[in-house]
Amino acid sequence: MRAAALLGGPQENWPQNLKAELKKADVIFGVDRGSLLLEELGIIPDVAIGDFDSLKSAELAKIEKTVADIRYSTPIKDLTDSELMIKVAFEEYQVDELVIFGATGGRIDHFLVNLLMILNPQMRKFARKISIADKQNYVKFFSAGDFIVEKMPQYSYFGVAAISAVEKLTIKNARYDLIEYSGDYPRVFSSNEFLPDRDNFTLSLEKGFVSVIYSKDIDRFSNL
Amino acid sequence: MRAAALLGGPQENWPQNLKAELKKADVIFGVDRGSLLLEELGIIPDVAIGDFDSLKSAELAKIEKTVADIRYSTPIKDLTDSELMIKVAFEEYQVDELVIFGATGGRIDHFLVNLLMILNPQMRKFARKISIADKQNYVKFFSAGDFIVEKMPQYSYFGVAAISAVEKLTIKNARYDLIEYSGDYPRVFSSNEFLPDRDNFTLSLEKGFVSVIYSKDIDRFSNL
Repeated sequence: MRAAALLGGPQENWPQNLKAELKKADVIFGVDRGSLLLEELGIIPDVAIGDFDSLKSAELAKIEKTVADIRYSTPIKDLTDSELMIKVAFEEYQVDELVIFGATGGRIDHFLVNLLMILNPQMRKFARKISIADKQNYVKFFSAGDFIVEKMPQYSYFGVAAISAVEKLTIKNARYDLIEYSGDYPRVFSSNEFLPDRDNFTLSLEKGFVSVIYSKDIDRFSNL
Repeated sequence: MRAAALLGGPQENWPQNLKAELKKADVIFGVDRGSLLLEELGIIPDVAIGDFDSLKSAELAKIEKTVADIRYSTPIKDLTDSELMIKVAFEEYQVDELVIFGATGGRIDHFLVNLLMILNPQMRKFARKISIADKQNYVKFFSAGDFIVEKMPQYSYFGVAAISAVEKLTIKNARYDLIEYSGDYPRVFSSNEFLPDRDNFTLSLEKGFVSVIYSKDIDRFSNL
């Protein structure tokens, strides 16, 4: 079962076909203001999660009237709203995969919370099943193991970001290979590419967490 | 002496008053496509740095005609173009501080390279003198020590991001205090605020690196 979630990040970062992407999901989660944004797209979320403190009372009333399953979080809490959503999705709704939209752009502290939440020990077991997508990037997460990472046709580049200390991080059969890199601080190996004659590369690490960031250029700018 | 640098990140993320901000600097650096973007703003960079491989030959010719100091980097290199710029700014131009624009938005691997480059052991000694700014965020970097972090009036919020393992990270005299947090993976403490009656908070850590991310809401969206 596939799930999609919309967080409250800026609309300018949404994939162009967001509504179609959302409709492919079997279960749709709205997180905080994301619940309202879903309704504005004509989609009633199956589950709305948040403290909803950024919503006006009429906006919250609308959500309370239409959404069957609402989870109210408290402002002081162990899990962020997004983390609570992940827990509900995998533990209660038993979903197999989850794509998160509205997680990028805007306030950098918010974006980093969304990118790094899989490092929370309570979230780590779900990391392989979670992706973050926006108009230009598709992010997957990997912990220790050996993986074949498949090409996604719409993305030209990929970067591998060690988002924690890592041991023996290896990239093979890509344009730029990396052999048994170990480091005790986060580091990004950016602007890599799939080989023309291959539709995957090999990724392995013995310890730590990495994200593979698929990306494409969407205008004349690149920021390195 | 103050320096500013423009990287090639998307224009939609620039501060509204970018040209005025750049003109406050004593030395202006263009990194790769950033050099061309500066010229389009009517500003001739003092130094242009990059492999310029994303520029057309006529674009590169224009830069070569107008810019007095050009540093050509090679595609396979120890330092990224941005890191080379930092080295030239502090070691050759002897600048005291450096604000980097055009470092956010667009491809997430590029943004993370820019955010995390201060963790490169060759860059660490410059961390306290470097800032990253965009339309909604202002990022400063701190390593082990005790600091008074001043309010910046235009920003309502701040987050503290442990971008490496940290020991005894402490935030005092803020809306949400944090006492001697230690962790072996990156973690973000977001959406904090200065106290109404104070124009600073106290930050300390015994080991590791943190960034303080000042931010503001610029539209009706927030992404948590």
